[in-house]
Amino acid sequence: MNSNSSSKRRFQFKKIAKSAIKDVFMEYETPKLVVINNPKYATLLRIIQIIILIYSVLYLLIYEKGYQKEDTAPISAVTLKVKGIGYAYTPDNQTIIIDGADYIIPPSENNAIFIMTNFIRTDQIRTKCAEATKIKGAVCKSDSDCSNKPFTPTMNGRWTGRCLLSPETNVLNRIKNNTKTPTGLCEYAGWCPPEDDQTSTMIVQEVRNFTIFMKNFIEFPTFEVKHKNMVDELTKPCIFHPKTNKDCPIFTIDHIINEAEKNLSEHSLMLHYGCVIRMKVDWDCNLDRKIKLCKPEYSFARLDIPFYENPFSPGFNFRYATSWKQNQTYVRALTKAYGLRLIIAITGKAGKFDFITLTLNIGSLVGIFGLATFICDIAILHLSKKAHTYRKHIFDTVQLSARPDTILELAKRHMRRASRFPVPPSTIAEESSAETPDDMLTSPEQAVTMDPDNAMNSDQ
Amino acid sequence: MNSNSSSKRRFQFKKIAKSAIKDVFMEYETPKLVVINNPKYATLLRIIQIIILIYSVLYLLIYEKGYQKEDTAPISAVTLKVKGIGYAYTPDNQTIIIDGADYIIPPSENNAIFIMTNFIRTDQIRTKCAEATKIKGAVCKSDSDCSNKPFTPTMNGRWTGRCLLSPETNVLNRIKNNTKTPTGLCEYAGWCPPEDDQTSTMIVQEVRNFTIFMKNFIEFPTFEVKHKNMVDELTKPCIFHPKTNKDCPIFTIDHIINEAEKNLSEHSLMLHYGCVIRMKVDWDCNLDRKIKLCKPEYSFARLDIPFYENPFSPGFNFRYATSWKQNQTYVRALTKAYGLRLIIAITGKAGKFDFITLTLNIGSLVGIFGLATFICDIAILHLSKKAHTYRKHIFDTVQLSARPDTILELAKRHMRRASRFPVPPSTIAEESSAETPDDMLTSPEQAVTMDPDNAMNSDQ
Amino acid sequence: MNSNSSSKRRFQFKKIAKSAIKDVFMEYETPKLVVINNPKYATLLRIIQIIILIYSVLYLLIYEKGYQKEDTAPISAVTLKVKGIGYAYTPDNQTIIIDGADYIIPPSENNAIFIMTNFIRTDQIRTKCAEATKIKGAVCKSDSDCSNKPFTPTMNGRWTGRCLLSPETNVLNRIKNNTKTPTGLCEYAGWCPPEDDQTSTMIVQEVRNFTIFMKNFIEFPTFEVKHKNMVDELTKPCIFHPKTNKDCPIFTIDHIINEAEKNLSEHSLMLHYGCVIRMKVDWDCNLDRKIKLCKPEYSFARLDIPFYENPFSPGFNFRYATSWKQNQTYVRALTKAYGLRLIIAITGKAGKFDFITLTLNIGSLVGIFGLATFICDIAILHLSKKAHTYRKHIFDTVQLSARPDTILELAKRHMRRASRFPVPPSTIAEESSAETPDDMLTSPEQAVTMDPDNAMNSDQ
Repeated sequence: MNSNSSSKRRFQFKKIAKSAIKDVFMEYETPKLVVINNPKYATLLRIIQIIILIYSVLYLLIYEKGYQKEDTAPISAVTLKVKGIGYAYTPDNQTIIIDGADYIIPPSENNAIFIMTNFIRTDQIRTKCAEATKIKGAVCKSDSDCSNKPFTPTMNGRWTGRCLLSPETNVLNRIKNNTKTPTGLCEYAGWCPPEDDQTSTMIVQEVRNFTIFMKNFIEFPTFEVKHKNMVDELTKPCIFHPKTNKDCPIFTIDHIINEAEKNLSEHSLMLHYGCVIRMKVDWDCNLDRKIKLCKPEYSFARLDIPFYENPFSPGFNFRYATSWKQNQTYVRALTKAYGLRLIIAITGKAGKFDFITLTLNIGSLVGIFGLATFICDIAILHLSKKAHTYRKHIFDTVQLSARPDTILELAKRHMRRASRFPVPPSTIAEESSAETPDDMLTSPEQAVTMDPDNAMNSDQ
Repeated sequence: MNSNSSSKRRFQFKKIAKSAIKDVFMEYETPKLVVINNPKYATLLRIIQIIILIYSVLYLLIYEKGYQKEDTAPISAVTLKVKGIGYAYTPDNQTIIIDGADYIIPPSENNAIFIMTNFIRTDQIRTKCAEATKIKGAVCKSDSDCSNKPFTPTMNGRWTGRCLLSPETNVLNRIKNNTKTPTGLCEYAGWCPPEDDQTSTMIVQEVRNFTIFMKNFIEFPTFEVKHKNMVDELTKPCIFHPKTNKDCPIFTIDHIINEAEKNLSEHSLMLHYGCVIRMKVDWDCNLDRKIKLCKPEYSFARLDIPFYENPFSPGFNFRYATSWKQNQTYVRALTKAYGLRLIIAITGKAGKFDFITLTLNIGSLVGIFGLATFICDIAILHLSKKAHTYRKHIFDTVQLSARPDTILELAKRHMRRASRFPVPPSTIAEESSAETPDDMLTSPEQAVTMDPDNAMNSDQ
Repeated sequence: MNSNSSSKRRFQFKKIAKSAIKDVFMEYETPKLVVINNPKYATLLRIIQIIILIYSVLYLLIYEKGYQKEDTAPISAVTLKVKGIGYAYTPDNQTIIIDGADYIIPPSENNAIFIMTNFIRTDQIRTKCAEATKIKGAVCKSDSDCSNKPFTPTMNGRWTGRCLLSPETNVLNRIKNNTKTPTGLCEYAGWCPPEDDQTSTMIVQEVRNFTIFMKNFIEFPTFEVKHKNMVDELTKPCIFHPKTNKDCPIFTIDHIINEAEKNLSEHSLMLHYGCVIRMKVDWDCNLDRKIKLCKPEYSFARLDIPFYENPFSPGFNFRYATSWKQNQTYVRALTKAYGLRLIIAITGKAGKFDFITLTLNIGSLVGIFGLATFICDIAILHLSKKAHTYRKHIFDTVQLSARPDTILELAKRHMRRASRFPVPPSTIAEESSAETPDDMLTSPEQAVTMDPDNAMNSDQ
C-alpha cells in the first residue's frame, strides 16, 4: 500500500509538473488596466506623454544617437612639426638665426610642444661669484650680513658668507662688471655668473609666422577602426583656415594666439613671458557613414591666467642647460626659456548602429514613459475632486486577517453593508450625476462584489 | 463649545492620522493581473522572456559581470628601459657605436619613447652660406634671383639676397664642396652648412635586436588597489613571447614591428623613415579573485599611414641639436632623427562584487523584462483576431462625467445593458466555443458586474 | 449606390477617427491595483520601500548629486617648477653645486617631472677599451675567451674578440687604472671607458628641501568652465601643509616622500636608487556654488615596488648624454641618473543642476522602487500560507479557447462550481479564521463572480 501511494504521488507530481509547464506556455499575465474617462487628466497625461515621446525620440534616439553603441575612449598619437626660421638680437647687437632645433625644447614630447619665444642665455662655470642684485638680502656691507642667512629658493647657489664689495666676475673670457655700489653683494658658490634677466633678454622675431603641422592618428578600440586627420586630397603647402580650409592641419602661431586670446594687448605679453594654450582636437565619428566623412574639429583656448589679472605666477618659463668641457672643467650655457606651451587634448567618440544598445535604450525609454502615468495617477488620486471615486475603481481590497480592531473600521464596514443591500447588483438605473460623490463612494465596491469582507464572511 | 469642537477635531485628526499610519503598515498594493489563456501569445511571450532572461543573466550578469562595481579609470605609470648596442657607418666609412644614451631622444618621456633608427648629423656654425640644392628657387644666376623672395618653411635661414656662384662652405675645419654648377645658389644667413639628406644618412644597425623592458604600475583609485606587470617568479633574462612567455615584459623591436605591421616590405621603410606604433596594455582585473591572477595583455598596432599608400607626410622624424662653444662661437651638431616612436596606451578596468551595483542591475533587468509583456500586449490587443475580447478583459472603464454626449456612446451603452440581462451572473452553462467572439465580447463585462455605468447608476 | 456606400464608409471612417482622437484625450489607462490587507507583508514592503527611498534620496540624489549633470573628462595642463640648490661630492673630493637646470631631465615634460637625486657621470670617447669588471663573461685569459660570445644587453659595446690582460684606459687626459688581475678583460669597441657604478656615484644633497610649485589649469568642456589651483589671496613664499596650508600648491620633496612612503627605512633607498611617485590632483567641483570654492585635493602614493620586497627591477634610473667635439672627435658626458620620477594624474568631475538629468534619475529610481513590490509579490504569492487566496485575487483568468482538455481541468472546474453555490454572494457572516485555507481558497473566486469559467459559460 505504501508503494502504491508513493507511485500515486509520483503520478500526481508528474501531472502537476506537466500541467505547470503547459500553463506557462498556455497563459500569460498582463496588468489589468482601469480606463478613466476624465478629459482633464487624460489630456494632461497625453501632453506629458507627447513631451516625453518627442524628447525621447528626437533628442535621445536621433540627436544623441541612442541607436548607436559608443566608444568614447580613443587611443591617439600626435606628432608635431614646426617650421619657420626666427631671429633674435643679442645684447651686443648681433643678429642670430634661431631654427626649429633651437626653439623646440625638448625636441619631442608626447601630446605637447614648447616653442621658445624669448630667452636669456648665460654662459656659466662652477666657481664663486657675487649674487644677482635683484636677490633680496644679497646687498651687504660686511661679511656678517652674508653669513647665517637661511636658504631661499631664489638664491643662485650656496652662500659662502663673504661680502664682495667690488663684485667682478670673469666667466669664459667675458668680463662683466656689476654696478659698483658703495655696498657690496654676498658671494655664492655655484654656477657663475648669475643670470641677468634685466638686460640680456632676447626675443625671437617672426614667431607668429611659424607653422605647426599636426598629424593626429586615432583608433577606436571597440570598433577596431583607425583614422587620421589628413584627408587624401590635401595639397602640401596649405594653411588652416576655419572657413576656407578646414581640412588642412597646418596652423600658424598667429592663428593659434588669436583664437586662444581675444584680448590683443595680451598677445605681446604672451610671447614675452610665455603662456599655456590647449589645443582640442575633437572627433565625432558616425561609423554608419563612410569613415572619410569623419573629420576633427580644432579649437584653441588659453589655459594660464591673463596678465591683466596680475596672477600669482604669470606666464610660462623653464631653464635648461647644455654643458661641455673646456680646459678640464665643465662649462654650461644656461637658457631661461619663455614661450608658447601647447598642450594637445584629443577627445573623441565613435558610434555605430548596435541592436542591443537600441533595445536597452528603448527599454529605458519605456520606463521613462511610465513616469507620465505615475504623475497623472498621483494627480488624479490626490488632487482631483473625485479622487475618492477613482480610488474605489483603481483599488481592489483583499482583507483576510479579519477581526476589525477599531470602532472606525467596524463603522466603516457597517456603512458599506448597509449601502450594499438596497441596491441589487444588476439594477437598471439612470446615470447618476457626479454631484453625489459620497453615495458613489460605496457603489463601485458594491458593484464589484469582490468585497474582501464578503470573501471572509461567506465561508461559515 | 468652541474649544470642545476643536478638541474633538484634534481627536478626530489624531484618529485619522493613526489609522492612516496603520493602513500603510496593514495594506499594500500590487497590480491586478489578467491571465490570458492563449497558447500562441503565451508561447511568444515566454520565448521573448527566455531570450531576455538568457541574454540578461548570461551576457549582462555573468559575461559582463553585472554584479561588480567597476573602475575604468586607472592611474598608471610606465617606465621604459631599452637595451642594445647599435652601430652605423659614417659617410667617411667609419663604424661608430651607438648606445641607448645616443638613440633614445629625449632620454625620458611620459608614456612614450623614441628610438632613433636612422639619422643625419651635420656640424654647424652660425654664418652665411649657400642654400641646399634641393630647395626650390635656390638656384640662381644673379643676385636678383635671390632677393625679394617670400619666406618658405623649407628655407634653412634668412636669405641675404646674394647669389653664390661657386658655393663653398667651411665649417669647423671640415671642407665641403657643393657640386659646382654653372648656376649658383642663393646665400642665407643661419646655421651652416645646410643639412644634406641625400648622402650623409646613417642607418643604425642591429635595431631589431634591441629589447624594451616595460615596467607598468597601475592603480585603481576606487578600490585602492595597486598592481604591476611583473610577476614575482620572473627570471631576469627573458623575452616576451605571445604563447610561451606571456608574463615577461621585455619585448624585442623585431617582435614589435612584426606585430604592428604584417606587410614585410614596409619593415625596412619603417626603420628608414620612421613610424608611429602604439602599444596597448590592457588590464582586466577581477578583484574577487587573487590580484596576482590579473595580468595585462599587450598588443601593438601601427598608427601612421603605410608608405605604399603614399601619404601626405610619411614616417616620423624630428631634428635636435647639441651645442657648445668653440673659439668664442656657438657650434652645434644638428641631428635629423628618423625612428620608431612608441606610444604606450594603458587601458584598464577592475571589478569587485558590489551589492548596490547588483541591485541596480537586477532592477534595470526587471525593467527590460517588462518589455516582453509590453510587446505581447501590443500584439494581442492590436494584431490578434480576438483583440476586442481581450480589450474588454484588460480594460475596466470608469466613466464619471456621465451624460453621454454622442449617439455612438449611448448606443454602445445600450447594447451592453441589453446583453447583460438575459444572462444571470452565476448561471451554470456549458462551455461556449470560441466561434462566437461577438457574443463573448459582451459576456466578460457582464460577468465582472463591475461595470462603471452600473457603478454610477445604482445609487439613485 | 456604390458612391453612396463609399461616402457612407468615408463618413464612418471620419467618425471613428474623430472618436478615436477624442478617446485619446478623454480617457487614460492606469493599472488596476489590488490592495492586500496583510500586515506582515505590508510591513515588509514598507521597510523595503523605506530602505530604497532613503538610499535613493540620500545616497543617489543628495550624496551622489543625482540632480546634476556631470563632466568627468576635464582637460588639464600642469606646469611644474622646482626650486632648490643641491650639491654633491665628486669622487676626487670636490663639492659641486647642482641646480635646477642640472637635476631636471628633460627640462620640461607633460604631466611628469624627473628630479635627479644620485648620478654617475663618465666622460667618454668612441674607441676600444676593456669591459667593466661587473660584466659576466668579460674576465678572460686569452683572446679565445672573448670571441664568439653572444651579445648580451649588459655589454657596453661590440666585443672585438681580444683579451686585454692589463687593462688600461686613457680617456680625455684622465688616466684610470682598472684593478690588475692575473686574468684580463675582454676588449670592446664603443664609448670608453665603461661606466663604473661602484665607486663614482654622486648623491645630490639637500634634495629633501627642494620645493615643487605645481600650477594646474583645468577646463570642463561640457560647462565651458576653466579653473586653476591657485587661489587669489595666495602669498608667494608658502609651503603646502595638509592642515594649515591646504591652498598652497608648493610642496617640499620631503613632504612628498613622507606621504608616498610611510616606511622610513625606504626613504634613503628611494633617493639613492630612484623611485616612481604618482601625485593625484582630484577636483570635485560643484558648479551650483561659486567656482572659487572648488579646490583640488592632493595625494601622493608610491607606484614602484618597495625595495624590501626585493623586486625584479628596483628603483628608477636612465642614462643621458651631452656631447661635443674636441679635437675633431665627438666626446660625451654620460650620466646615469637615479631619481624621483613624479607622475601627475589629474582626475576631476564637475556637476551642475540639470533638469533632464534629474528627470532621468527620478525615472530610474521609480523603476527601482517597483522592485520592492516585485519582491513582496514573489513572497506573498509563493511563500505565504494564503498564497492561493491571494493569487485568486490578483489574477483574473481569461479563457477563450474553451474545451477543457484534461480531466484535471474538468475536475477543478467542477469543484469550483460546487463550492460556489451554497454561499450566496452577499451573505453576512462571521469572520473566518485563517486556519481553514482550503475553504478560503474557493471563497474569493465566488465572491468575485468574475470567474473566467463563468464568463465563457454564461453565453449559451
